[in-house]
Amino acid sequence: MAKKAVSLISGGLDSCVTSFIAKEQGYGIYAISFRYGQLHKKELECSNKIARAVGAEDHVILDVDLQKFSKSSLLNKSANFIQDHGLKEIGKEIPSTYVPARNTVFLSLALAYAESIEADAIFIGANAVDYSAYPDCRPEYIHAYQKMADVATKIGAEGRPIKIEAPLLRLPKSEIIKIGLKLKAPLADTWSCYRGGEKACGRCDSCLLRLKGFKEAEAKDPMPYEYYPDWYTS
Amino acid sequence: MAKKAVSLISGGLDSCVTSFIAKEQGYGIYAISFRYGQLHKKELECSNKIARAVGAEDHVILDVDLQKFSKSSLLNKSANFIQDHGLKEIGKEIPSTYVPARNTVFLSLALAYAESIEADAIFIGANAVDYSAYPDCRPEYIHAYQKMADVATKIGAEGRPIKIEAPLLRLPKSEIIKIGLKLKAPLADTWSCYRGGEKACGRCDSCLLRLKGFKEAEAKDPMPYEYYPDWYTS
Repeated sequence: MAKKAVSLISGGLDSCVTSFIAKEQGYGIYAISFRYGQLHKKELECSNKIARAVGAEDHVILDVDLQKFSKSSLLNKSANFIQDHGLKEIGKEIPSTYVPARNTVFLSLALAYAESIEADAIFIGANAVDYSAYPDCRPEYIHAYQKMADVATKIGAEGRPIKIEAPLLRLPKSEIIKIGLKLKAPLADTWSCYRGGEKACGRCDSCLLRLKGFKEAEAKDPMPYEYYPDWYTS
Repeated sequence: MAKKAVSLISGGLDSCVTSFIAKEQGYGIYAISFRYGQLHKKELECSNKIARAVGAEDHVILDVDLQKFSKSSLLNKSANFIQDHGLKEIGKEIPSTYVPARNTVFLSLALAYAESIEADAIFIGANAVDYSAYPDCRPEYIHAYQKMADVATKIGAEGRPIKIEAPLLRLPKSEIIKIGLKLKAPLADTWSCYRGGEKACGRCDSCLLRLKGFKEAEAKDPMPYEYYPDWYTS
């Protein structure tokens, strides 16, 4: 029987590349995405395209109303709450885009899905390099989550724990992009911008990290931007 | 500033008593309940009554569509899936009422809530005595969850972890009932039956455990039952 993996697909670049890594490792992909009060619907449109591109066996989209108790700017009604930083300031503090316990909520729903289909693994695109200030993107967090998951589930208790795989955990964005290009992941169909315009804004933290990654990977980002920083085009 | 606790209120007896223990310990109570595809609405009606009785500061009811990936008889469209057992058989195997990763999903949403209001603790009515076969009701599970939560959150990373409190973990049902009676918890407004009739069925595993608890506590269950086992009335 083929190995099964639940893959968390946010519509962003990291989770897209992660799904293609899972596929490359021989897993059948069971995609899961969340409608959790994001500012815009771009991510979910992208997650659909990515799930199709990776040949997912199934794609579950779950409603989780995190807005009920969140002050994060990612969930705020007004996009004006997104605060731009210079590249040097990104990641030093826990940013206003932090959603309380988001990865814990998403991994836990993925765990319920994984247990119900008796999956072997859960793949998550968590990254500790660019998001070092997010507590739930650190290696120690993924490690503690694995320990908890091992005792949380029926199949874990029966000696067949579900492996939490975060293959991008320690990779810089440029490496992630290189892997994505090598695996022919549809990077043009991934959305990273914190704003939800027609094109990516090119100014928010997430756009800057992405453009810097492409620059360092010596590749051109296929995503159209409203604005390009000087250092990207020069 | 008063201590704050998020309390998971299912509408059952255990979570009701747990909320009253939290209140007794001086916490302001922030109740959270879930609409997750239960067979019947009794639990949520009861959770409303319990939240009011305990004087909760707020009561969040969250939709989580666990039905999307569950085969549990608690979530099945047909109530016929509930299988009754004799008292001696209860708890030996993981029962058909097990919902994959349920406590993990619920605790994780409670963690998001707790972090957003900067709560000091989360109270859960998990019990390892009656539900020894449920992996996510065991002490080692609660312990592993605590370790994970300590590194998962922003306030945890800042040195103020949220404590996971499961005060009933090792108590037999009769003790839980005695505590509930002592704290004047509204046990008549708690629903334990796996079936959702006008009265409790008196035949399912959950009714049997509850009636046995009252019998051993030498108290009368204020809940009306359709049927009473001989050993309860004698």
